[in-house]
Amino acid sequence: MISDETIAMIRAFVAERGWEPFHTPENLAKSISIEAAELLECYQWAPQMPPLGDDHAKDELADVLMYCIMMADALHADMDGIVRSKLERTARKYPAKAVRDRPDEAIARHWLARGVRPDDVER
Amino acid sequence: MISDETIAMIRAFVAERGWEPFHTPENLAKSISIEAAELLECYQWAPQMPPLGDDHAKDELADVLMYCIMMADALHADMDGIVRSKLERTARKYPAKAVRDRPDEAIARHWLARGVRPDDVER
Amino acid sequence: MISDETIAMIRAFVAERGWEPFHTPENLAKSISIEAAELLECYQWAPQMPPLGDDHAKDELADVLMYCIMMADALHADMDGIVRSKLERTARKYPAKAVRDRPDEAIARHWLARGVRPDDVER
Amino acid sequence: MISDETIAMIRAFVAERGWEPFHTPENLAKSISIEAAELLECYQWAPQMPPLGDDHAKDELADVLMYCIMMADALHADMDGIVRSKLERTARKYPAKAVRDRPDEAIARHWLARGVRPDDVER
Repeated sequence: MISDETIAMIRAFVAERGWEPFHTPENLAKSISIEAAELLECYQWAPQMPPLGDDHAKDELADVLMYCIMMADALHADMDGIVRSKLERTARKYPAKAVRDRPDEAIARHWLARGVRPDDVER
Repeated sequence: MISDETIAMIRAFVAERGWEPFHTPENLAKSISIEAAELLECYQWAPQMPPLGDDHAKDELADVLMYCIMMADALHADMDGIVRSKLERTARKYPAKAVRDRPDEAIARHWLARGVRPDDVER
Repeated sequence: MISDETIAMIRAFVAERGWEPFHTPENLAKSISIEAAELLECYQWAPQMPPLGDDHAKDELADVLMYCIMMADALHADMDGIVRSKLERTARKYPAKAVRDRPDEAIARHWLARGVRPDDVER
Repeated sequence: MISDETIAMIRAFVAERGWEPFHTPENLAKSISIEAAELLECYQWAPQMPPLGDDHAKDELADVLMYCIMMADALHADMDGIVRSKLERTARKYPAKAVRDRPDEAIARHWLARGVRPDDVER
């Protein structure tokens, strides 16, 4: 879980350093992308080269999570609330039984929603 | 917060659809970067153009968080634990009083750690 | 421009080090995202903090371009060809006169194509 | 190659639509990251799921290249120049013979430069 205590620790960390003015939604969005790429870097040349160890990936994931927590704050969002809301909508879009019975159809619908024509999907 | 109930809902969502085989750490790392970019897209042409509304940003942040939760699972990581651990180390690297008294020095050290020479930092 | 000589230099650089096996399309796609984030990092806290100097941004842009060149190679793509093809299609989708006369409409169509409802676009 | 004619076509495309004010270096850096993630999306669930076809990847690569060309313009950079400059420095950092004879050492040095301790590198 991510507890309210942890969120309070992050707020205090930022406030003690006077860093709030830099934490606009846009700067935090940039920061999340930047840290996500550092996490991805653990797997840059995998599988041809072994990935970095899990401890390093956990460290980078922690950075992504920290900025996500700060972003939720900046947007006045409750993380549990927005995640459950999105999960429910996605569950309705891709009902469990339909996905299990017709997996290819779910995949095709996913790509169609992104503007990818069925021909582009390799089989 | 992100509660254990929410995490359980996400695990069930994945299991009901048989999607676990796709959730390797590498694929989840790619997914976090992909969703982070969709969040960034809310601010792509800001401030010259107004950003997308906060509701849309919350939706995209929810996607990033969902994949982070799945990634923590794949790495057998406790999110509170890894975030607090990283926060403590960062707090020691950038002590609050030093940052407030000598902000430029903290900035310079930050960039030096990334291989950026002091000349590259505009004033 | 990016000349054929520069492309040849990059191919030689990779071959001399025996790095071709790592340059799968997927690994190169990951690499492009990773380097794009390092370029974005130049502007992470802008405008609240000045961005890194242009020389640093050019260095990071060079890394993105190098991986793009390698990716074009891996996909057997002619960069001029694919760029012009995409440019023509985008030009038809957003005719110049229509964009100048009704800029808000072009913006709305752009977001609609990404699944964003008109209400999400701030005015 | 990317020819000067293609670069001129892109400049004209932007000017005809009055889009220059939006093309600040920061917005273009955000755009490059956003498009890089759309390219990465072609491989999101690979290899567990087949990637999208090469034609789709070429399309997304074209978008990344277009924004890179616009970014080079915004930074007044000659793409051939900055790529060759970076290539030369990287070639000196990782001499061909040393890389072929002691590949593990090159990998270790690469990660060390990013602050990753040798223990984090799996064997």
